[in-house]
Amino acid sequence: MELLNKLLNIHSVSGDERLMTDFLIEYVNQRKSQWKVQPEFYFGGEFHDCLLLKFGTPKTAVFSHIDTIGFTVRYEDQLVSIGGPEVENGFDLVGEDALGPIKCRLVEIDGDLFHDFPRAIVRGTLLSFAQVIRINGGFIQAAYLDNRLGIYNCLKLCESLENGWVVFSTYEEHGGGSVPFLLKFIQETSPIKQALVSDITWITEGISHHQGVVISMRDQFIPRKIYLNRIIKLALESGIPFQLEVEGSGGSDGREIQHSPYAIDWCFIGAAEDNVHTPSEKVSLLDLDSMLALYRYLMKHL
Amino acid sequence: MELLNKLLNIHSVSGDERLMTDFLIEYVNQRKSQWKVQPEFYFGGEFHDCLLLKFGTPKTAVFSHIDTIGFTVRYEDQLVSIGGPEVENGFDLVGEDALGPIKCRLVEIDGDLFHDFPRAIVRGTLLSFAQVIRINGGFIQAAYLDNRLGIYNCLKLCESLENGWVVFSTYEEHGGGSVPFLLKFIQETSPIKQALVSDITWITEGISHHQGVVISMRDQFIPRKIYLNRIIKLALESGIPFQLEVEGSGGSDGREIQHSPYAIDWCFIGAAEDNVHTPSEKVSLLDLDSMLALYRYLMKHL
Amino acid sequence: MELLNKLLNIHSVSGDERLMTDFLIEYVNQRKSQWKVQPEFYFGGEFHDCLLLKFGTPKTAVFSHIDTIGFTVRYEDQLVSIGGPEVENGFDLVGEDALGPIKCRLVEIDGDLFHDFPRAIVRGTLLSFAQVIRINGGFIQAAYLDNRLGIYNCLKLCESLENGWVVFSTYEEHGGGSVPFLLKFIQETSPIKQALVSDITWITEGISHHQGVVISMRDQFIPRKIYLNRIIKLALESGIPFQLEVEGSGGSDGREIQHSPYAIDWCFIGAAEDNVHTPSEKVSLLDLDSMLALYRYLMKHL
Repeated sequence: MELLNKLLNIHSVSGDERLMTDFLIEYVNQRKSQWKVQPEFYFGGEFHDCLLLKFGTPKTAVFSHIDTIGFTVRYEDQLVSIGGPEVENGFDLVGEDALGPIKCRLVEIDGDLFHDFPRAIVRGTLLSFAQVIRINGGFIQAAYLDNRLGIYNCLKLCESLENGWVVFSTYEEHGGGSVPFLLKFIQETSPIKQALVSDITWITEGISHHQGVVISMRDQFIPRKIYLNRIIKLALESGIPFQLEVEGSGGSDGREIQHSPYAIDWCFIGAAEDNVHTPSEKVSLLDLDSMLALYRYLMKHL
Repeated sequence: MELLNKLLNIHSVSGDERLMTDFLIEYVNQRKSQWKVQPEFYFGGEFHDCLLLKFGTPKTAVFSHIDTIGFTVRYEDQLVSIGGPEVENGFDLVGEDALGPIKCRLVEIDGDLFHDFPRAIVRGTLLSFAQVIRINGGFIQAAYLDNRLGIYNCLKLCESLENGWVVFSTYEEHGGGSVPFLLKFIQETSPIKQALVSDITWITEGISHHQGVVISMRDQFIPRKIYLNRIIKLALESGIPFQLEVEGSGGSDGREIQHSPYAIDWCFIGAAEDNVHTPSEKVSLLDLDSMLALYRYLMKHL
Repeated sequence: MELLNKLLNIHSVSGDERLMTDFLIEYVNQRKSQWKVQPEFYFGGEFHDCLLLKFGTPKTAVFSHIDTIGFTVRYEDQLVSIGGPEVENGFDLVGEDALGPIKCRLVEIDGDLFHDFPRAIVRGTLLSFAQVIRINGGFIQAAYLDNRLGIYNCLKLCESLENGWVVFSTYEEHGGGSVPFLLKFIQETSPIKQALVSDITWITEGISHHQGVVISMRDQFIPRKIYLNRIIKLALESGIPFQLEVEGSGGSDGREIQHSPYAIDWCFIGAAEDNVHTPSEKVSLLDLDSMLALYRYLMKHL
């Protein structure tokens, strides 16, 4: 869990993912010699802060977003949300501006958001939840499990992956915009017709802890039934525990794959969490294990 | 009306249009030898469940979506809407899961949707309105006139079409996503600058039955005035009855043409219906006739 | 101010920008021989009513939308908004239909909009605010400062620009759709990685008149922090007065740049106005001056 611990302690609010990008560049370059297959590794200004790994001859691409929700400092101690963070009085926030590090609390008054830092914070400064990681009773609890676990899943997948794209996208939590140019690059380099979205979903009345990774049959958007059926068939064959989700809202990088000028099937697969978009997102370690296992299986057989 | 009858009895909820695709492949292959011009016919995995027909040297493309609204089965007998179906207690729903065929009713309680099938239905199963077709008094009444009539219009158009693309798109009712890759293929194969959207619109205080096909001057999105003016001028010259619509909401495949990376003018033209997105959509047969006639005229003169 | 006066008196509601396009073609062709660098000038059917100027070897593109908000005439004296105009009883509206020129007033009843013209107006006719220009006390006040000032800024920029794209986009106020094909053309002709959006923003509790041009750190969408930081550093070096804005809503051509299949950074920079989307938009002439100066500086140093 050392890797996961590191991932959880890196700030990368949507639009400012550079620290995570730098970590991933270094991590991949240090580790890839031990991986089963040596990937092509693409990053740099041409890709903003995104990264792509091409293993062998890809049939499928896995997308994992590296940004987190957070807040932009406005005027008069106001905050504006980035993505859809839950807001509760007293949540600890951290960040940094030209005058130094910031540690303060979230204050909500009649739906408006403020910080309680004693001095004014420079306009446009990005704040995010302070990190507290707790592992016990079969659970991990922390801020940003969405989508640090999705990144973790991808990095573990890289160790044995023979064929496939592994793609780290940016600013997914806030309207997206990197998947279109990533897809263009993929389709012009080594095109694919299938995608998986490595991301974290929700505990609901139909989805419980410890019951396995979630295959999402729909959220606000609807993947093709024919592709879902193939994935579910393979998941059954794999013997790995999984759950089927049906939602009417929510979205992911899948939305942008759906609307791209390429006929690419997509499906969201990931562990479910409680306390979504709070500092205490909570995921079952068993569900995380089955997420890792199912990605390994699907990338071999899909 | 045998063709229309068949179209109306095929299930193809957004994301699961395969049965309609298969029908259209077979229909086109059986009939095209009798058409005035032999088209190029494109379909298959590369196009998901969409189909394209290229006649002669196209200047204009006609788009018709082949999906319908419906419902996804969730947990605990809950349903989630696909597209924007009207919901009323007692609407008959049909579908099929691994355990067999399903016939049940829609139940609405405080805005939440349920089915009343005696057993649990497999998660992710798609249900749609049971079909009852009534033709009398100058009207046709059925579920899914939107957009079975749009498909019908296209297939009749094919019989005499000399130049043009006829395009069957998928999952239009629920957020779209096929038009971008269809347009990319069209522009890379035989590009066009003009499009018509063969779809069904609404009876309102300004649009009546039996007054002719509707040329929509705007819905949520706004086509270019210069293109509208050309179409209206041609419609006047044609002598075919038509009505002009101005709406502030609603959308169609036109939305995705507007937002594509191609400068393509678009206009929605179709008969108007009462009881939109219910099992009893109602269209005047005279309006349907004028829709067919106007498409034939425009595809020759636009 | 003669140029600005002319721009303010041209009708070009979203979807019907032809008059502005024609004016810009004539203006550029008359003036360009006096400009420091002779640009390539692109316009015509292939670009709908948009125009592009390529100066030297571009690193950055400036986007300015040439449409305005307005109203579409519906049935029974109803009006439907184009873009998001403020509505107040008695606002003067002008337009023209087949029967002649129209001058009437806006009537709002329980949220529904009507005109009070004595005769019926042809369906689909476009109306816009009557123009009244007032320059005094260091302010300009008129309808459509958003985005006539953005166009004006671009035309003044052209006089001394050595390298860069200047792009005039259409139908931005109502959902956009021209930026995708403009970007495709730019990237296939002389690609760029940086964009500026020359548009007008809002006076708020954090943004005041006479304090300089506004650099927007975010609106509904979020530009990359790394690009913002470079722009702010250059703005500080320039000595030109500027203000930093942080908003949670609103959008611009930047939205479509963000969602394009190209990795292009964007930032909205423009003067702020009071009375947004009314006939009396109000901008400080000092802020307009600093807008002009900052664009000249950034296009040289960015």
